[in-house]
Amino acid sequence: MASYTFREFSLEVALANTRRLGLSRIALKSFHLPLNTPVEDIRDAAARIRGEGFDLYGGGVIYMKNRDEVERAFAYAEAAGMSVIIGVPDESLLPLVEEKVTATGIRLAIHNHGPTDEAYPSPESALRKIRGRDPGIGICLDAGHTMRCGIDPSDSARACGGRLLDVHIKDVTSPDESGTTVEIGRGVIDVPRFLRTLMEIGYRHTVSLEFEKDGSDPLPGAAESMGYVRGALGGLRALR
Amino acid sequence: MASYTFREFSLEVALANTRRLGLSRIALKSFHLPLNTPVEDIRDAAARIRGEGFDLYGGGVIYMKNRDEVERAFAYAEAAGMSVIIGVPDESLLPLVEEKVTATGIRLAIHNHGPTDEAYPSPESALRKIRGRDPGIGICLDAGHTMRCGIDPSDSARACGGRLLDVHIKDVTSPDESGTTVEIGRGVIDVPRFLRTLMEIGYRHTVSLEFEKDGSDPLPGAAESMGYVRGALGGLRALR
Repeated sequence: MASYTFREFSLEVALANTRRLGLSRIALKSFHLPLNTPVEDIRDAAARIRGEGFDLYGGGVIYMKNRDEVERAFAYAEAAGMSVIIGVPDESLLPLVEEKVTATGIRLAIHNHGPTDEAYPSPESALRKIRGRDPGIGICLDAGHTMRCGIDPSDSARACGGRLLDVHIKDVTSPDESGTTVEIGRGVIDVPRFLRTLMEIGYRHTVSLEFEKDGSDPLPGAAESMGYVRGALGGLRALR
Repeated sequence: MASYTFREFSLEVALANTRRLGLSRIALKSFHLPLNTPVEDIRDAAARIRGEGFDLYGGGVIYMKNRDEVERAFAYAEAAGMSVIIGVPDESLLPLVEEKVTATGIRLAIHNHGPTDEAYPSPESALRKIRGRDPGIGICLDAGHTMRCGIDPSDSARACGGRLLDVHIKDVTSPDESGTTVEIGRGVIDVPRFLRTLMEIGYRHTVSLEFEKDGSDPLPGAAESMGYVRGALGGLRALR
């Protein structure tokens, strides 16, 4: 679960909703654990979240516009025990990001934000910018924003291969800039094909639900989306 | 949608939730349109519901313990323009039910209620009691109560064949009397197999979601269940 889904609610509500959806892996958006939280408090919060049975695997989306923000993001993730930062670092900071990835063992997954994102609209655009760098730098493929670039996220997942380090699964109304998030299964993305592709490329990290619609009442749409993903996996299995 | 799902809410809320789930076909439980409503008022209510874009295809579950209740059920369904009554008629009333089915063209789908139901625990038990009768008398296969009899609903669907006139899709925690409704995909029923079976037997009527859990807050679980069904169909299609 990408806690951005519950951005209008407290951390407690985000965790309760995540649990109600039958999920335990969660990546926190800063609303639920601010980036400027003192290190000791981050440690305490992370321990409490884990104590409630959640696998706090990542944080993001975290923007990094200067060296200090890179330092802060990795210190934050390290204090929280996160294994991956879903991030948007300025391209000029990639050498520093690579140093931090190597030093900390925390992966950095660059999140693509669609046609209006000048830095990383698609996974492909991000891949070009990290070519040759440490394999701990990779991609968080946002299925919706990828489709909004007119690219089938299944094709992007194949292009990423081993560089695919996190996935924001969602559906959108249209395969262009006008597309907005909709319940998975009601939009234009072939989600069963996408899930099958993830299995075929041997993807071993997290598929995280980021549901942007209905910010003030996201639970039903998030539940329908989660049900769709489980059902699609069940349908794919049934015919094996 | 079986409106029993929203039994603790008004008709308006039941319709709004059904719409939010992306569904338009609905069968009303008496909470939402009482059986003793005057015929003119039933006609008005049905016209209003259809005017809002819903296909009011059926009513139920309606119990029929004497001849008057059979007459009333068919008059109710006729006034509402329903094409099927999901019902539990006493076995002794089946000849009268058959007369009414023949006279009105309204189908009667006997709903099975699991191991503690003395009349019709399983679809198979109901089939035995209607053998040889008009094909407008058939079964509403309740997937949950069937599983609670220890019978895979896919097997029951095959046993019903052309007698299958309605389906209450759901999932349950256990394949015995202790089983209770849970979000589809979290229980013990192989729902993708069930959906595939319905396609294989050429089922052409409605698959209705009846979600019994969380009566006071059913929308998230109903949404997850609906998402699962759509996802399973998508997954099954993906491998064709």
